[in-house]
Amino acid sequence: EIFERALWLLTSQDLAGEHLLVTAGPTRERIDPVRYLSNDSSGLMGYALARAARQRGAQVTLVSGPTALPAPLGVNLRRVESAAQMLDAVLATLPAATLVIKAAAVADYRPCQMAAQKLKKQQMAAPSLALEKTPDILSQIAACKGDRLVVGFAAETERLLEHARDKLERKGLDLIVANDVTQAGAGFECATNIVQILHADGRCEALPCLTKWAVAHALLDRLVALRCQRAVDSQP
Amino acid sequence: EIFERALWLLTSQDLAGEHLLVTAGPTRERIDPVRYLSNDSSGLMGYALARAARQRGAQVTLVSGPTALPAPLGVNLRRVESAAQMLDAVLATLPAATLVIKAAAVADYRPCQMAAQKLKKQQMAAPSLALEKTPDILSQIAACKGDRLVVGFAAETERLLEHARDKLERKGLDLIVANDVTQAGAGFECATNIVQILHADGRCEALPCLTKWAVAHALLDRLVALRCQRAVDSQP
Repeated sequence: EIFERALWLLTSQDLAGEHLLVTAGPTRERIDPVRYLSNDSSGLMGYALARAARQRGAQVTLVSGPTALPAPLGVNLRRVESAAQMLDAVLATLPAATLVIKAAAVADYRPCQMAAQKLKKQQMAAPSLALEKTPDILSQIAACKGDRLVVGFAAETERLLEHARDKLERKGLDLIVANDVTQAGAGFECATNIVQILHADGRCEALPCLTKWAVAHALLDRLVALRCQRAVDSQP
Repeated sequence: EIFERALWLLTSQDLAGEHLLVTAGPTRERIDPVRYLSNDSSGLMGYALARAARQRGAQVTLVSGPTALPAPLGVNLRRVESAAQMLDAVLATLPAATLVIKAAAVADYRPCQMAAQKLKKQQMAAPSLALEKTPDILSQIAACKGDRLVVGFAAETERLLEHARDKLERKGLDLIVANDVTQAGAGFECATNIVQILHADGRCEALPCLTKWAVAHALLDRLVALRCQRAVDSQP
């Protein structure tokens, strides 16, 4: 804790006055009281972003799905399990937020209904799990975006830039961080990441293999720059 | 490590000469490279059994699904992900094992096929996940049981003893540990457990709320007693 507080003192407070809302980790969508659908997200990227932004002076709310990570110091951590719970927590924080980074790997689908009791093998003769879409959190954020800067992530296994650019445009994002999760040194449950940052104005920056901590600071640098740009653009 | 080794010296070596094969944790059944089906098992019970048996002089092989737990000292740990991988690891160890405890919460179902690439929302218009049964590890153990003592677990949310007794008989188990995972202080991701131990001879013992460490020793006590009983019964 002393080390962490010393880091804050030694770091430029270029995010002072901002309130970052960051989501992290996977979500779990329940099939019954013991079974669920989930994904490999470790939460490392979102937690690194929360810690880095706090260090740079932002107020930070971290909405996190189930992870094994400790709460970053000085960050308002809200733990949730499902996509629906994550949406509720995001919407509750959104009015106060000035920056939004959606680093969570939210499940796209969930079972249409959750069984109240554990399903028995014998009950499932022709087993098939009917799925429905989970609420689209990014679209709901985009719908009331206002002056906020909003960043998304695209973790893909093929046609990375195409999928990422499409997502950026559909969701009205300012930036999207694209990474190919099949690359060694990238993606889920990995301390490093190899990302490309796509901007709304069409720019694409390919970063080298970096720790998630360095990726977090690189991304926050871009947000600070965008904020400056906006301030300049709005001058009469 | 010194503490752990001291514990071994201070503990009755009543499992010396035995080779315990214990399974632990959940399994993950992949839908695509990033998504999976899983369950809430933490692995605590299986890891406690492995450590307790090692302390009492057994050679121990621990076949574990994905957990956040460290490897117990002196235990041969084999990490696996899916039910199919767990079966392979169990069958490879089974010939050498004299005691088998299946504490893992193996997925009963898996997707019929795993997609090679991450599925896109747009690709899944009428989403439904076709499932198939995973291999039944306990039945395969039962099929070549020999002189081994075999223990299963039944984690249920309703009609606990009925389900557990049925499972014990169908799988030819010597003991089954039944617990209602909906009870406070019991079940998955919990340091304590409230269990009933059902014997093949019809006995049922209800234990109080105990740490999983204490439940592990209680279960190993029953195995030692069964082993003695068998030795007596086989006297001419």
